[in-house]
Amino acid sequence: MKTEEAILTRRSTRRFKKKQIEEELLNKVIEAGRYAPSGGNSQSNHFFVIRDQKLLDQLAEMVKNAFSKMEVHEGMYKSIVSSITQSKSGNYVFHYDPPCLIVVANKKDYGNNLADCACALENMMIMANELDLGSCWINQLRWLNEDPDLLKLFYKFGMKEDERIYGALSIGYPDTEDGMPERKTVARKGNEVMYL
Amino acid sequence: MKTEEAILTRRSTRRFKKKQIEEELLNKVIEAGRYAPSGGNSQSNHFFVIRDQKLLDQLAEMVKNAFSKMEVHEGMYKSIVSSITQSKSGNYVFHYDPPCLIVVANKKDYGNNLADCACALENMMIMANELDLGSCWINQLRWLNEDPDLLKLFYKFGMKEDERIYGALSIGYPDTEDGMPERKTVARKGNEVMYL
Repeated sequence: MKTEEAILTRRSTRRFKKKQIEEELLNKVIEAGRYAPSGGNSQSNHFFVIRDQKLLDQLAEMVKNAFSKMEVHEGMYKSIVSSITQSKSGNYVFHYDPPCLIVVANKKDYGNNLADCACALENMMIMANELDLGSCWINQLRWLNEDPDLLKLFYKFGMKEDERIYGALSIGYPDTEDGMPERKTVARKGNEVMYL
Repeated sequence: MKTEEAILTRRSTRRFKKKQIEEELLNKVIEAGRYAPSGGNSQSNHFFVIRDQKLLDQLAEMVKNAFSKMEVHEGMYKSIVSSITQSKSGNYVFHYDPPCLIVVANKKDYGNNLADCACALENMMIMANELDLGSCWINQLRWLNEDPDLLKLFYKFGMKEDERIYGALSIGYPDTEDGMPERKTVARKGNEVMYL
């Protein structure tokens, strides 16, 4: 696929087949993430590639529990409100049940942590589309990145004490009839451009 | 170019030819930015495409003046320290003198503003590489995004009262012998990956 096509046809996938991603494709996606630019070339993104079904289920449960204990307040970001509401109803799987979740952490005291993580996630989303995989940006672990139980779990996975999670990506084969990502190009109505 | 190649060979360009970017190429880069994903599909990135040499010079001067007035303190992000030190020495052009600077603003009270901006910038950097253009992520206008003089200027450009700048991209033809971007692929030593 040409670069332009991979960028313009990328869409979010929220329903995945159970099939695990082929190792070769997964490695290409991760390498794309590792080659994203970073502030002062710090290369301090730390990737956690979670394919163990028990761990994925455990994470979903922990995130649901954490949001269940939170209260909605005025001016809260609407996606967080939605996570809380769904969690309280008892029916919430934040990662859309993918075969693989790639979590990205970075140094908490580093001024470019979120930006660097976002560039890596964007690279991985484009590469996933190129490889006929579907993916979706996942924010919940960033919103909960001071949650003591989640911190303890990721420290066990090898996250450093001075790192926090800034984003994640659900990725896998799209659960469509032909197993391919939906690629309808939808015109952008927002994202206004001013020429000076 | 294949998507994978465009992603893996992208490098930062910090020296540009004076030549302005062809309109058709610039539009492709901007469309790539507009097609980045956004939180809840909000599409609230606001792009300012600055090609006027006087405006670019004025911005460089304003940024230098703003940093000149700041003091370095313990624990400050090292790139900000560098901006302050260089500005105080009187010799500082934060945007590397490109023919074009693309500034990205977003809603200041929106929880995904920086992440959405970063995805758009990353798309534009990859697309620039695809089109044999060079580009470099520029952070200074984000660090100064509450500076009253810069705010006043961008309001004049059409930025909304509730928007702030979250990033920018210097872009143009690389000032190399053959005018092409350097594409040496340098192995990543950081960006560790844990498989679970």
